[in-house]
Amino acid sequence: MPAKQNPLVVGLDITGTFIFAIEGALAAIQANLDLLGVLVLGFSTALGGGIIRDVLIGASPPAALRDWRYATLALTGGALTFICYRQVIAVPHLALLSLDAAGLAIFAVAGTEKSLELGISPFIATMMGTITAVGGGALRDLLLTHVPAVLRTDIYATAALFGSIILVLLRRAGLRPKPAAFFGFIACFIVRMLAIHLHWHLPSVNPVHS
Amino acid sequence: MPAKQNPLVVGLDITGTFIFAIEGALAAIQANLDLLGVLVLGFSTALGGGIIRDVLIGASPPAALRDWRYATLALTGGALTFICYRQVIAVPHLALLSLDAAGLAIFAVAGTEKSLELGISPFIATMMGTITAVGGGALRDLLLTHVPAVLRTDIYATAALFGSIILVLLRRAGLRPKPAAFFGFIACFIVRMLAIHLHWHLPSVNPVHS
Amino acid sequence: MPAKQNPLVVGLDITGTFIFAIEGALAAIQANLDLLGVLVLGFSTALGGGIIRDVLIGASPPAALRDWRYATLALTGGALTFICYRQVIAVPHLALLSLDAAGLAIFAVAGTEKSLELGISPFIATMMGTITAVGGGALRDLLLTHVPAVLRTDIYATAALFGSIILVLLRRAGLRPKPAAFFGFIACFIVRMLAIHLHWHLPSVNPVHS
Repeated sequence: MPAKQNPLVVGLDITGTFIFAIEGALAAIQANLDLLGVLVLGFSTALGGGIIRDVLIGASPPAALRDWRYATLALTGGALTFICYRQVIAVPHLALLSLDAAGLAIFAVAGTEKSLELGISPFIATMMGTITAVGGGALRDLLLTHVPAVLRTDIYATAALFGSIILVLLRRAGLRPKPAAFFGFIACFIVRMLAIHLHWHLPSVNPVHS
Repeated sequence: MPAKQNPLVVGLDITGTFIFAIEGALAAIQANLDLLGVLVLGFSTALGGGIIRDVLIGASPPAALRDWRYATLALTGGALTFICYRQVIAVPHLALLSLDAAGLAIFAVAGTEKSLELGISPFIATMMGTITAVGGGALRDLLLTHVPAVLRTDIYATAALFGSIILVLLRRAGLRPKPAAFFGFIACFIVRMLAIHLHWHLPSVNPVHS
Repeated sequence: MPAKQNPLVVGLDITGTFIFAIEGALAAIQANLDLLGVLVLGFSTALGGGIIRDVLIGASPPAALRDWRYATLALTGGALTFICYRQVIAVPHLALLSLDAAGLAIFAVAGTEKSLELGISPFIATMMGTITAVGGGALRDLLLTHVPAVLRTDIYATAALFGSIILVLLRRAGLRPKPAAFFGFIACFIVRMLAIHLHWHLPSVNPVHS
């Protein structure tokens, strides 16, 4: 999530932050939280993943707290959702899911890239990319005392991990950061959209209840 | 929460830490936790906000873990609540609420001031002040798997945020740290006490359940 | 959890990481999580305590994220539990409890020792040792939205704290790191096993419900 020069990346980063803030705010309204709860959930969902990553890799203070524009963007997304709740829930579900997939992909790629730049090993960098992408949503679920949806539903974190791995492999194959990030983004986005349309999900084990 | 010279500030800081420890310990007893749970909840409620702030702004190790007197104070508050539970719950509710409001105000002001000193932008510093004030209580609620009360009830974090903003605005207007902190403290305390007496609360949106 | 030369310590450290990963994976399967959830819970249970300690004492990035072998070991434990679920749950309960006690003891001792090396005060170092030992299990419980078992059940964190205190006292008495760690390990392990066999538990207070 650090400021980038490339306008496409900036646009995607803003889109991701904004859509994640809206999702957090919607979850807060569904849980009967007040205005403050809506803003906090919007902020946490949008910026929580990047903050957790930065705390883990020792990049402090986190970028999301150093650059006031991220906080402003996340709080604006939350406030707009509060004010225009009826309009927001009228947005077609598929549009929201597609924007969410774009946010997931950009966060995964940005988180992986930032970790690599700070000298984190590629293996751990793919985890950090995935945490960047899904950490905000997991934080939102935990604040609402739900088991994080990412641990039990379909291909979501897996898509982020896949995009991160593609980025790392392409970098190892000699590709430069920008094209590697581009293909990582595309890989994550396509896997996520296919998973939604084809109802893919990961295997699970039937527990024995004693 | 760093050690201050001013005896009034030291007194308020000790009061805040101690009363928050008692509140955490009471919540643990209500949830049937054992002695260790009571001590952990007391510690987390009293010192969790400052620890979260210090981790976020990169001041590590956190002050609450560097100075053994904070831990001792918090654990003493928890242990006394465990031993004198009947006496503690006999304390008039309004007295507890007033002490809690004083703790909220001193933590908000101390957290904002410390963030400003470390070069955090004023906008983010008000958030850090609020997290210092309410983070411990939120951690206590999450450890008991409750949705943090601060996200859904009346004017609590909002009072802390208000006090932090007053401090920041007065500093920008040229006031020196001590009087700015004093007025920030008073602003938070008064808003919180008024909110209790006048039953103020933030607006919320009626969710649509589909 | 830093790499040690002593083969016994390395063996215990690997055992602890692996058994904690299995316990996390079992809890994930019982909660109907999918493969990703099983891997994440295994990872969090095995390495969460050390990561929380390193974030708190400012040793970033955490050792568990710098050395890929820890992540590999934890993920292998999770994956094997997923694949061999029936075999894992057929392991005698007492064997699992004994291995868990060994993991608890080695993590408590390693966490205390690492904190002391980084100049943390002995009092806080015993807390950091205890957090290293029980933090992963607490994180696992929180991700499944359970109140951390460590806050309410028998002598578990208390055994870790006891081992940490023994280590610190022996160091203060002039003993060298290795024998002090050895006796700390033995103290924690014995207290934990006795607590299991003799059904020891901490006192609690009967709450008044108003």
